[in-house]
Amino acid sequence: MAEHAPLTDNWRFKLFKIIYHSDTKLGKWFDILLILFIIISVLTVVLDSVQDFHGKFGDVLYFLEWFFTIAFTFEFILRLISIQHPLRYTLSFFGIVDILSILPTYLSLFLVGTQHLLVIRILRILRIFRILKLIKYTHQAEMLIIALKNSWHKIFVFFFFVLTVLVIFGSLMYLIEGPANGFESIPHGIYWAIVTMTTVGYGDIAPHTVLGRTVASFIMLTGFSIIAIPTGIFASEIDKMKRETRKLKRICKTCGLRGHTKNAIYCRRCGHEL
Amino acid sequence: MAEHAPLTDNWRFKLFKIIYHSDTKLGKWFDILLILFIIISVLTVVLDSVQDFHGKFGDVLYFLEWFFTIAFTFEFILRLISIQHPLRYTLSFFGIVDILSILPTYLSLFLVGTQHLLVIRILRILRIFRILKLIKYTHQAEMLIIALKNSWHKIFVFFFFVLTVLVIFGSLMYLIEGPANGFESIPHGIYWAIVTMTTVGYGDIAPHTVLGRTVASFIMLTGFSIIAIPTGIFASEIDKMKRETRKLKRICKTCGLRGHTKNAIYCRRCGHEL
Amino acid sequence: MAEHAPLTDNWRFKLFKIIYHSDTKLGKWFDILLILFIIISVLTVVLDSVQDFHGKFGDVLYFLEWFFTIAFTFEFILRLISIQHPLRYTLSFFGIVDILSILPTYLSLFLVGTQHLLVIRILRILRIFRILKLIKYTHQAEMLIIALKNSWHKIFVFFFFVLTVLVIFGSLMYLIEGPANGFESIPHGIYWAIVTMTTVGYGDIAPHTVLGRTVASFIMLTGFSIIAIPTGIFASEIDKMKRETRKLKRICKTCGLRGHTKNAIYCRRCGHEL
Amino acid sequence: MAEHAPLTDNWRFKLFKIIYHSDTKLGKWFDILLILFIIISVLTVVLDSVQDFHGKFGDVLYFLEWFFTIAFTFEFILRLISIQHPLRYTLSFFGIVDILSILPTYLSLFLVGTQHLLVIRILRILRIFRILKLIKYTHQAEMLIIALKNSWHKIFVFFFFVLTVLVIFGSLMYLIEGPANGFESIPHGIYWAIVTMTTVGYGDIAPHTVLGRTVASFIMLTGFSIIAIPTGIFASEIDKMKRETRKLKRICKTCGLRGHTKNAIYCRRCGHEL
Repeated sequence: MAEHAPLTDNWRFKLFKIIYHSDTKLGKWFDILLILFIIISVLTVVLDSVQDFHGKFGDVLYFLEWFFTIAFTFEFILRLISIQHPLRYTLSFFGIVDILSILPTYLSLFLVGTQHLLVIRILRILRIFRILKLIKYTHQAEMLIIALKNSWHKIFVFFFFVLTVLVIFGSLMYLIEGPANGFESIPHGIYWAIVTMTTVGYGDIAPHTVLGRTVASFIMLTGFSIIAIPTGIFASEIDKMKRETRKLKRICKTCGLRGHTKNAIYCRRCGHEL
Repeated sequence: MAEHAPLTDNWRFKLFKIIYHSDTKLGKWFDILLILFIIISVLTVVLDSVQDFHGKFGDVLYFLEWFFTIAFTFEFILRLISIQHPLRYTLSFFGIVDILSILPTYLSLFLVGTQHLLVIRILRILRIFRILKLIKYTHQAEMLIIALKNSWHKIFVFFFFVLTVLVIFGSLMYLIEGPANGFESIPHGIYWAIVTMTTVGYGDIAPHTVLGRTVASFIMLTGFSIIAIPTGIFASEIDKMKRETRKLKRICKTCGLRGHTKNAIYCRRCGHEL
Repeated sequence: MAEHAPLTDNWRFKLFKIIYHSDTKLGKWFDILLILFIIISVLTVVLDSVQDFHGKFGDVLYFLEWFFTIAFTFEFILRLISIQHPLRYTLSFFGIVDILSILPTYLSLFLVGTQHLLVIRILRILRIFRILKLIKYTHQAEMLIIALKNSWHKIFVFFFFVLTVLVIFGSLMYLIEGPANGFESIPHGIYWAIVTMTTVGYGDIAPHTVLGRTVASFIMLTGFSIIAIPTGIFASEIDKMKRETRKLKRICKTCGLRGHTKNAIYCRRCGHEL
Repeated sequence: MAEHAPLTDNWRFKLFKIIYHSDTKLGKWFDILLILFIIISVLTVVLDSVQDFHGKFGDVLYFLEWFFTIAFTFEFILRLISIQHPLRYTLSFFGIVDILSILPTYLSLFLVGTQHLLVIRILRILRIFRILKLIKYTHQAEMLIIALKNSWHKIFVFFFFVLTVLVIFGSLMYLIEGPANGFESIPHGIYWAIVTMTTVGYGDIAPHTVLGRTVASFIMLTGFSIIAIPTGIFASEIDKMKRETRKLKRICKTCGLRGHTKNAIYCRRCGHEL
């Protein structure tokens, strides 16, 4: 993000460091304050949806609502003025999140019944990750993302297979059980298949015929065992990465060869001491 | 599949390459078109099962139904004439799928109430895998299949054990709870045991007696912990394969020795440069 | 089992080989016949519990019942006379299973309403494992058992921890929800906690109060994440064993050193060719 | 704990060894007796909550209640007098557990309706772990704790992500389904999302609209696949530790280099025999 920093005048750079970095004292405080604001503002949205709270503390929640909206608006403006390319930020993921998190309240002035849009503000919670950008956390997060990316192809094939199975079994159950037993259509059947295969099992739709239950048993045992597949893929992916990252840690200063065992004292390639 | 290619006359070989390969421009377009047709035709079947859609758009769905049937018939004919051994293909898995995906509609002309057979057409979705046959995807798919094949023996033993447990506990619960609590017979008991052990838990059949609930708790905790077994088997299988495939990547051009570490520069056996 | 073989007279040894081994032609046939008998006899027990079947085919099932009982009795006698130490076998696990699988039917002659004991006969299914004793299967089965044994201590600690958690939360929920919401006593609470933590979730007992649902959410997320623990333990155990068994495969014929890599040509210790 | 041992007078040290160690004959018996007392006293609390038991055996349970309370009080006093720093123990985790496990019964004399506090006594079960402190068990327990500690960062990021997802989807479902279908508020929605994503699926709250079920299906499949993530993290963590602990076993007595392979006879670094 360094290239976004305004190097020209001093106060803007100071502001930039406070808002976008957390290695300064003020920066840390700014981050902590922001987290608190985000969490509380999310709680207000959550509590506002509860009838009792809305009835009793409606006014307080309304006030808080506006307080946070203005606070986040102010924060957004600061972000824009303290950066080199305001537009680039605005169109970035977090930029859009910022807008989404303040827009609904303003819209609520003009439109009626848009209080529901406030939900979008919950996306604001995602911004906490921006503060988690400490070596450790990002490292871990990146690791997870990379692991997902590396195992993406296998997982895609897996889900494609699962989807096919769901459609086939959903249709089968629709044929076997029929509308009489709650399988009103193939979509209902597919929904039931998902509920069953993921082992959620609400029980709102359940087979009643002997054949239906036999097929259902088969689906359950399948789901039960294929749960292993993505776990297997993912576990081995993480494991492989772990091994590699561990290797990467020791690098020969002479020839730059990576992957030295913990107890090696000389470089395997150039023979120089590590 | 190359040996299936008709090398004699030119147009047939061209056709073969378009239909069976996806490395030519036309071949890619043929594949994409086919995927679209398959997905839409599956959707029509799905939507046709919904009462409202059937009522409102019955005619449209009927038309689409025939449009796709004819399209797939045409595709099937093309496949047969463009190949050396049509019969061999017809009797192959995908050949049978092709027939199953067009037959029901034709049968619906002669037979009444065979609209249900349309479900079989959903098998058509499996043909999408034929197009996914790109190195990456097949590699991944193959890997999964090989992993399953390698761990097959262990998984078989595991499922055999699970089945035995299910039969014993299903019967026990039938004895303990009895028809009064929904355990009408041993099959009902086994069905309940499957629903419980796979952690689906519909709740349509649930124990009510103290002893029944004690046994149930035992089954749940068992299921809870044996979920680990196939996952463990599979994960280690995948992991082992990953390690091996990684090794296989580097081969000595001189002596053909496999399994060189990333940072090796000379062959471990013959000493020649890699 | 060789030491059990009667070496004295010839026909007994022949019989022994047929019954206890499966490497002879007759032995294989004996095993296959036995499997069929076991499966069918189990099915009869299962079907007999279904009212309709019992009503319609009661006589057939009764006849089959006796046919299989006599058949298994005959098999048991053969096992005893063909072996050196009949008593030792009788007191072994499979010996007891054999007795349990024939006794109930005989008892049913003297006692009334012991048809329920027939369930024990389902234990007979376990005898199929005796036939599965082919290198591959036993190898796999042994591997699983060893893996379980090796990770036993960790899994015990884990289950001890889980039990403690279940008791504490079960009691908490009994306090929070109370009999009004189905949590009639602490055992009910513990039962609910098991149903919830194992992600079975029947829904026959579910929290209704705000506090209860909050605690429940906490239990679910805990269960959701601790599912990882035994899987992790087991997966790594299997994995470790895999690695070791792979190592064990290559042994130096000169010094008997084990654990040579696939591409090694000379023994690491004595320098002799492998 | 040795530094807590009172070395001055003899009888106190003897007592200390009996209570805090289990390597002496008396110490073992003390531990076993304590376990029995704890388990039985927990059972009394559990059974006391069952109406029938309370009615029939109320007096017996009351007597046992007081018997165990006095016994544990006596044990607590012994622990305090046999140790160097009684206060330090009193303020330790197990010290507090000890107090919590005897206090409620005494309070019940003064306060009315504090029988519920007895639940806290169940915490007493945790003390069993103190006896499990045999090399093996602690080793395993420590391993699990370390593994959790090492993968803590990743798991934290994971749960943070899950929480965000739960809040967003919970709110979405509240918007889609609304109070009419049991989604009375966002908290209800979040509770439903937890029940669904953890694959518990009570079915007390379930989507009814088409859109709601579509979103629900998405959540289920997500939960179904992200179950893999902590398992993957944890499995690889355990696995890594296993590898390391295995390595640590062989140490060169000359240069103290760790991580020698099983079949190495000379130290890789200093060349001295191992």
